[in-house]
Amino acid sequence: MVFMGNFKGHALPGSFFFILGIWWTIKYILKYAFKKQKRTSYLDSKALFHRAEMLEGIVIVGMTLTGILGEQFYPGGPHLTLYDYKEGQWVQLLSWQHFTMYFFFGLLGVTNILSSTVVSLPASFSKLMLSNALFVEAFVFYNHIHGREMLDIFVHKLLVLVVFSTGVIAFMELFAQTSITVELLRTSLFLLQGSWFWQIGFILYPPSGGPAWDLMDHDNVMFLSICFCWHYATAISIVGAIYVFVTWLVKSRFTRFCPSEVGLLKNAEREPESEEEM
Amino acid sequence: MVFMGNFKGHALPGSFFFILGIWWTIKYILKYAFKKQKRTSYLDSKALFHRAEMLEGIVIVGMTLTGILGEQFYPGGPHLTLYDYKEGQWVQLLSWQHFTMYFFFGLLGVTNILSSTVVSLPASFSKLMLSNALFVEAFVFYNHIHGREMLDIFVHKLLVLVVFSTGVIAFMELFAQTSITVELLRTSLFLLQGSWFWQIGFILYPPSGGPAWDLMDHDNVMFLSICFCWHYATAISIVGAIYVFVTWLVKSRFTRFCPSEVGLLKNAEREPESEEEM
Amino acid sequence: MVFMGNFKGHALPGSFFFILGIWWTIKYILKYAFKKQKRTSYLDSKALFHRAEMLEGIVIVGMTLTGILGEQFYPGGPHLTLYDYKEGQWVQLLSWQHFTMYFFFGLLGVTNILSSTVVSLPASFSKLMLSNALFVEAFVFYNHIHGREMLDIFVHKLLVLVVFSTGVIAFMELFAQTSITVELLRTSLFLLQGSWFWQIGFILYPPSGGPAWDLMDHDNVMFLSICFCWHYATAISIVGAIYVFVTWLVKSRFTRFCPSEVGLLKNAEREPESEEEM
Amino acid sequence: MVFMGNFKGHALPGSFFFILGIWWTIKYILKYAFKKQKRTSYLDSKALFHRAEMLEGIVIVGMTLTGILGEQFYPGGPHLTLYDYKEGQWVQLLSWQHFTMYFFFGLLGVTNILSSTVVSLPASFSKLMLSNALFVEAFVFYNHIHGREMLDIFVHKLLVLVVFSTGVIAFMELFAQTSITVELLRTSLFLLQGSWFWQIGFILYPPSGGPAWDLMDHDNVMFLSICFCWHYATAISIVGAIYVFVTWLVKSRFTRFCPSEVGLLKNAEREPESEEEM
Repeated sequence: MVFMGNFKGHALPGSFFFILGIWWTIKYILKYAFKKQKRTSYLDSKALFHRAEMLEGIVIVGMTLTGILGEQFYPGGPHLTLYDYKEGQWVQLLSWQHFTMYFFFGLLGVTNILSSTVVSLPASFSKLMLSNALFVEAFVFYNHIHGREMLDIFVHKLLVLVVFSTGVIAFMELFAQTSITVELLRTSLFLLQGSWFWQIGFILYPPSGGPAWDLMDHDNVMFLSICFCWHYATAISIVGAIYVFVTWLVKSRFTRFCPSEVGLLKNAEREPESEEEM
Repeated sequence: MVFMGNFKGHALPGSFFFILGIWWTIKYILKYAFKKQKRTSYLDSKALFHRAEMLEGIVIVGMTLTGILGEQFYPGGPHLTLYDYKEGQWVQLLSWQHFTMYFFFGLLGVTNILSSTVVSLPASFSKLMLSNALFVEAFVFYNHIHGREMLDIFVHKLLVLVVFSTGVIAFMELFAQTSITVELLRTSLFLLQGSWFWQIGFILYPPSGGPAWDLMDHDNVMFLSICFCWHYATAISIVGAIYVFVTWLVKSRFTRFCPSEVGLLKNAEREPESEEEM
Repeated sequence: MVFMGNFKGHALPGSFFFILGIWWTIKYILKYAFKKQKRTSYLDSKALFHRAEMLEGIVIVGMTLTGILGEQFYPGGPHLTLYDYKEGQWVQLLSWQHFTMYFFFGLLGVTNILSSTVVSLPASFSKLMLSNALFVEAFVFYNHIHGREMLDIFVHKLLVLVVFSTGVIAFMELFAQTSITVELLRTSLFLLQGSWFWQIGFILYPPSGGPAWDLMDHDNVMFLSICFCWHYATAISIVGAIYVFVTWLVKSRFTRFCPSEVGLLKNAEREPESEEEM
Repeated sequence: MVFMGNFKGHALPGSFFFILGIWWTIKYILKYAFKKQKRTSYLDSKALFHRAEMLEGIVIVGMTLTGILGEQFYPGGPHLTLYDYKEGQWVQLLSWQHFTMYFFFGLLGVTNILSSTVVSLPASFSKLMLSNALFVEAFVFYNHIHGREMLDIFVHKLLVLVVFSTGVIAFMELFAQTSITVELLRTSLFLLQGSWFWQIGFILYPPSGGPAWDLMDHDNVMFLSICFCWHYATAISIVGAIYVFVTWLVKSRFTRFCPSEVGLLKNAEREPESEEEM
C-alpha cells in the first residue's frame, strides 16, 4: 500500500507492461517479416530468436523480482510477515496482493527460460502461463477495489477489463492456430495496460503535487471512458508505426543483398495473399 | 449532444450502418457465388473486388469524417475544445463520445485502404479493426446511458447488445476460418443496428413533431423487446432477398455464355454439397 | 396470455421441443452409425436423409403455424391487433411475444425446406437459423419475467439458461467442425427444454386442479434447482438409450447381409478409434 | 447437511478431486512423453492406457457411490426420502444437492467404463460427460449459497469460479483439437478445486476445534482472494514437478534400451519444435 499507493508504484508496472508490449510487437512483426521473406538467413534468425526468448524470460524474472522486493522491503512494507499475531490482524494485504500478481508474471518468466532451454517443453506452455498471469492479475484487481470512491473504482474496473480481455485472447490462442493479427491485438492491449497504469497514477497521485481529481464527479467518469479509448487508439498507432518501420527495415536489408530475387518473390506472393482475402 | 440529440443525429449513423450492411451482404454473396462457379472470369472479378475494397475504405473514411466534422463544428458543438478552463468543466462530452466512435470506424476505413494497396499487410487486419471499432462503440454506448429514463436506457442497451454481438462475431472470425454463413450473420446484425438507430430516433425524437413515447411505461419496454426481434426478422429477410437476387444474377449471366457446362457443373457440385450436409 | 397462461400453453411447446429433440437424436446417431459402416447402402440412405430433412422442415413449419394461429385466434387472443387506439394501450403483448418466438422457429423450418431443395444454399444456413431462433427465444423470455413472483421468475430463468446454452452450442458449431458429441449435447438440451416446459406447466398451473406451489418459499427454489439437474440426467439417459438402440439396429441389419465383412471392418476400425483416444 | 456440514464432508470431495487431478496429470504427461518417443513399446502402452481408463472409470464410480451412500444413509441423512408429507416440507435438500453432484460424476465414470469397453462409442463422450458434471456442480453450488454469511458466500463463489472455469475448458476441448497444454491446465484446476475444498473445511469447521474465522471481517475476504491464487500457484508447481519426474522417467527408461537412437531422435525433433515456436 505504501509502495504502490503513490505515483511511482503505478509508473513502475506501467513501464514494465509498456516495454514488454513494445518488445513483443517488434518480435512478432520481425518473425512475420522473416517468414514472408523465406531466406537462408531465416535459420540464423531462428537461433537469434531462441536466444532472445531466453533473454526475455530473464528480463521478466528480473523485473518481477524488483517489484516483489520493492513491495516487501520498502520502508513500511510487510517484510514477508503475513499475520500480526500480537494485534490479531493481517499485515499489509494490499502489498501481498501486488506480490501475488508479480509472482505469477515471475512464473511466466521462468517458463520462458525453461521453454528456450529444455527441448521437450511444448512452446504453448509460455502462452498458458501468460494467460494464467493475466487472469490472476484481473482476479486480484477485481477483489482490490472494495470500499473505494467512484472514480477510483472506475479506473480500476477499466484496468480489470483490459487485463481480462488480454487473458481471454491468450487463452483463445491455446485452442486456435495463432496468427500475426491476434498477436498484435494482444500486444496492443499490453501497451494500453501500460499507459493506463500511468494514467491511474496521474489521476490518483498527481506527480505535480497539485490536487487530485474530484473522485465523485460523474463527468470525470464519462471523460475517462473516452480517454481509455484514446489510449487504445494511441496503442494501435504505435503498433502500426512499428509495423511499418520493421517491415521496411527487413525489406531494405534483403533488397540490398538480392534485389532481383525479392522482386520475383513479391509477385509470387501476391497471388496467395489475395486468395486469402477472398 | 446538440447534433446527436435529435432525429437526424440518429438517422445519420443508422443510414451509415444500413448501407454498409447492404454493401457487405452483396459483396460476400457475390464472392461466394463466383467461387462456386469457378470460372475464368473469376480472376477478373478478383481484381474488381480489390478495387471495390479500396473504394469501400474511402467511402467509410468519408462517412466517418462527415460524422466527426458534424459533431465538432455543428453550431453548439465543442469545436475541438475538450476542457473549459474558465468554468472548470468538460465541454460537450457526449459529442466527444460520438467523435471517438466515428474515429475508430475511420481507422477501419484507413486499414481497408492500406490492405488493398500495400501487399504485405495481412487481410485479417481489417477484420481486427472492425472488431475493435465495434467493441469501442459498445463500450462507449455502455458508459453513455448514465442517469437517463427507463425506456431510453432500454433502447440503448439493446443497441449495445447488437453492437457487442457483432463485435464478438468479428472477433471469432479472427480465430476460425471464415464462412459465408458467419459473414451473412454479421451483415444481418449490421442491418439490425442500422434500422435500430432509426427506431431510437423515432422513439426519442419523433420527426412528426408529435409527443415522444412515455419513457416510464413498462408496456413500451415489453413492446420494444418484441419490436427488436421483428427488426432482426426484417434484416434476415433482406439478406435472404439479396441472396436470391445475386445468386440468380450470377447464374443467369454464366448460363448465357456456357449453358451446357454449367448444367454439368451443377450435377458435379450436388455431391460434395450433400456430403457436407452429412 | 390467455392461451399460454395455462397448462396446455406450456405443454404444447414442451411437446414440440421434446419431439424435435428425439427426432434429431435419432437422425444424428443414424447418420453417425451409417458413416461408420461405410456401405453401399450409405448412398441410398443419403437420399433418404435428404427427403427426411425436407419433411422435418415441413413439420417444423406446421408446428409453428399451429402455435402462431393458436396464440392469435384463441378466444381472447389479439387477433393480429397490436395496438388498441381507443384505449391507448398495447394488446396482449405476451401473446405477441410467443408469436415472435414461434415465428423464428418457423424461419428455421423454411430454411430447412429450402436447404434440402435448392442446391446452392450452404448447409450451415439451417444451423444459423437454429442459433438465431434460440437466441431470440432466450432474449424474449429474459424480457418476459418482469414483475412476477420469485418461483415463477426462477423457473423461467432456468428456461432462459437452457435455451441460451443451446443457442451458444449451435453458434459454436458455425465455427468448428461439427461432431456427433456436440450434436448429441445439443439434442439432450432440447429434451431438457421440452421436459422443463412441462415442469413449469405442472408448477404454475397444476392440471389436477390442486393448489399451485407456494411461489415465495425458498425451499421450493432449492428443490427446483436440483430437479432441473434431474431432468437433464433423464434427458442424457434417453439419448443414451436411443444411442444403444439405433447402433444395435444398424449393426444387426448390416450383419444380416454381410456378416463376415463387417467383422473384418470392426477390427480395422478399432485401431483409428483407439488412436483418437490417445 | 449433516454429512457435508463438517470438516470431513469437505475433506472427502477435496481428496477425491485432488487424487483425480494427480492421476490425470500423470496420465496425460505419460501419453505425451510416449508419443514423443514414438517407440514400438508405444503400442503396448496403448493397451495399458486402455485398461487404465477402465480402472479410472471404476474408481470414479466407486468414489461417487461412497459419496452418495454417505450423504443418504449417514445418521440424520434423508435416507432416500425427498418430501416429508407429514410436515409438508422438503427433506434435507442440501444432502440431495450433494447427491446430484455425485450422481453426475458417477455418469462420467460409467461413460469412461463404456468408452473403454464398447468400440463404437466416440472417445469425446467422456469429455462431454466431464463438462456436464462440472457445469452441474457449478450450477448447484451457485444455488447453494443463499442466505449465508459474507465469508461463507465468498469461498463458495470462488469454488463456483474454479468449477465453472474447468467446465468451460472441458467444453472448449469438444470443439478444438486437444493439446497437452490445455489438458494440464484442466488438471491443475482440478488440483486447485481439491485443495480449495480442504481450505473451505479449515475455514468453516476448523478441525482443531478452535474458533471459526470471523465470517464478517472484510480483511479475511481480501486474504482469501490472495490465498486462492497461492493455492493455484501450488497446483501449478505440483503439475510442473510431475512433468519433470515423468519426462525424466520415460527418457531414462528408453535411453537404457537404445541410447544412440534416442540421441538422434532428439536432434530430429528439435527442428519441428522450434518451428512450432515461430
